[in-house]
Amino acid sequence: MAVDVGGTQIRVALFPEKGIVPISQKKIKTRKSGEKPEDRIIDLIAQLWPANDSVVSIGLAAPGPLDPKAGVIIAAPNIPEWSNLPLRQLINDQFNVPVTLGNDANFAAYGEWKYGAGQGHHNLIYLTISTGIGGGVIMDDQLLLGEHGMATELGHIMILPDGPLCSCGQPGHLEAISSGTAIAAYVIQEIKKGTPSILTTNPPPTSKEISKAALAGDKLALAAFHRAGTYLGMALANYLHIFNPSIIICGGGVSYSGDLIFKPARETMEKYVMDPEYLQGLSLTTARLGDDAGLMGALAMARSL
Amino acid sequence: MAVDVGGTQIRVALFPEKGIVPISQKKIKTRKSGEKPEDRIIDLIAQLWPANDSVVSIGLAAPGPLDPKAGVIIAAPNIPEWSNLPLRQLINDQFNVPVTLGNDANFAAYGEWKYGAGQGHHNLIYLTISTGIGGGVIMDDQLLLGEHGMATELGHIMILPDGPLCSCGQPGHLEAISSGTAIAAYVIQEIKKGTPSILTTNPPPTSKEISKAALAGDKLALAAFHRAGTYLGMALANYLHIFNPSIIICGGGVSYSGDLIFKPARETMEKYVMDPEYLQGLSLTTARLGDDAGLMGALAMARSL
Repeated sequence: MAVDVGGTQIRVALFPEKGIVPISQKKIKTRKSGEKPEDRIIDLIAQLWPANDSVVSIGLAAPGPLDPKAGVIIAAPNIPEWSNLPLRQLINDQFNVPVTLGNDANFAAYGEWKYGAGQGHHNLIYLTISTGIGGGVIMDDQLLLGEHGMATELGHIMILPDGPLCSCGQPGHLEAISSGTAIAAYVIQEIKKGTPSILTTNPPPTSKEISKAALAGDKLALAAFHRAGTYLGMALANYLHIFNPSIIICGGGVSYSGDLIFKPARETMEKYVMDPEYLQGLSLTTARLGDDAGLMGALAMARSL
Repeated sequence: MAVDVGGTQIRVALFPEKGIVPISQKKIKTRKSGEKPEDRIIDLIAQLWPANDSVVSIGLAAPGPLDPKAGVIIAAPNIPEWSNLPLRQLINDQFNVPVTLGNDANFAAYGEWKYGAGQGHHNLIYLTISTGIGGGVIMDDQLLLGEHGMATELGHIMILPDGPLCSCGQPGHLEAISSGTAIAAYVIQEIKKGTPSILTTNPPPTSKEISKAALAGDKLALAAFHRAGTYLGMALANYLHIFNPSIIICGGGVSYSGDLIFKPARETMEKYVMDPEYLQGLSLTTARLGDDAGLMGALAMARSL
């Protein structure tokens, strides 16, 4: 059984012993008034539970920060009612099978590695670029977790000490410059300064709208992606020196803007790498599993128990 | 048998099956006119080879960049005659025992983990701050190597995009701001601008001399360490988010300056960390093995073969 919990929806899928096509699956909204999200998860798992009781294990991807070793959600910005919630124990108490809990970006990295764009690689970086920027890293076939499972927060390295504030409160993080939110914030700021654009500030444009405007030749939209891609490329050069991967996989909504962000990112990464050896055999590619990456990672993790 | 090769000297030590006190050891200069450094290594190993032929394995720490998986020195800035040298094979051909080759900073990390300040930890960052800045990382009891063994070049992340050029040619790397060379370069630059100091520019001051001047109250020397420590702290905050370690161990000559660099480093790290959870149970400490870290790492690696 694989479970993917997000701020908006909960997905549960029952898989056969082998293969990646679910026997059954269902999704519901994460929140309903008068119900706890954790009870909604338990209820949905129970709905899909097979009559013959044949479930071997459960993998559960959830928004972080969480401690996968302790099985505890520390805090979830998208699900504010959760704070130090021992979710793994709660699920285990109900269903009496082994449960693995991990943060969604880490599990998505694992999913892309086992079933997606990263198959066959041993050293992999996965970046999800959407509202925020998350990451997961596999080195020598091991998912990196760190002491409390809070490693590989790849959106949260300082790339510009005097740059804009990040959602986490710190200045100049990659997420504050190259995420979808940051791209939109830059566009709004420039329009307010008087830069001409076909985009408007109210409501704030989505990264998809900015992407469309860029493809239609809007100079501000093009500049916004170029800026985001350039700083992303600087971060990627750092990550080459830190992880020396054979593949970098980018997922999340912003990655659908393609060359708008990845062309400057690739050029900047290649400019700022300290030794061409790091580029030998390196792939920079987009994710293959799309919105299923977290669920497929939960499946792969459940199977590894 | 453990071997530590540096730009200046080669050390070889023969160890018993257990324990860390060598049965015999010897060091010689790395270079002698008319001789190849690799032949000098082989000769020194042969001198210490026991009559009963009881050597089980050889661990060999050498300056990088090198590929530990292939056993090849790619290039060694301190030993320019080495380029794509298959050193592991050369040693193995001579002595017919398993040989492991690794870069000195990685092996020093491994040495501190097995026999030094990092014993008992599972997630460890080791930074050596001297002429340059090198690093090694252990996560979940595994030394991180990456695809070609070129991971954890911790001195080479960009911390200030418009900062000074690094020895590797890239701008604003940590090494270009917080290494001993960078601290001296900053002092010289400021003296040339007219900043008063008891230090002089010719010959360039060593980090030890700058440290002495700082302890004597020299404002420029104090400012130079404060600047180096501040950027080091920013880099450490990044590394907390990336590796989530339980211990950070700092070695190398500059680490002997103690609080001069570590006080601002610790304060800045604590200021720029995104979540106090990363500081829970975290140690920031100096290396215990000193100049022996690489040799002890080579010993630990040889024993792991």
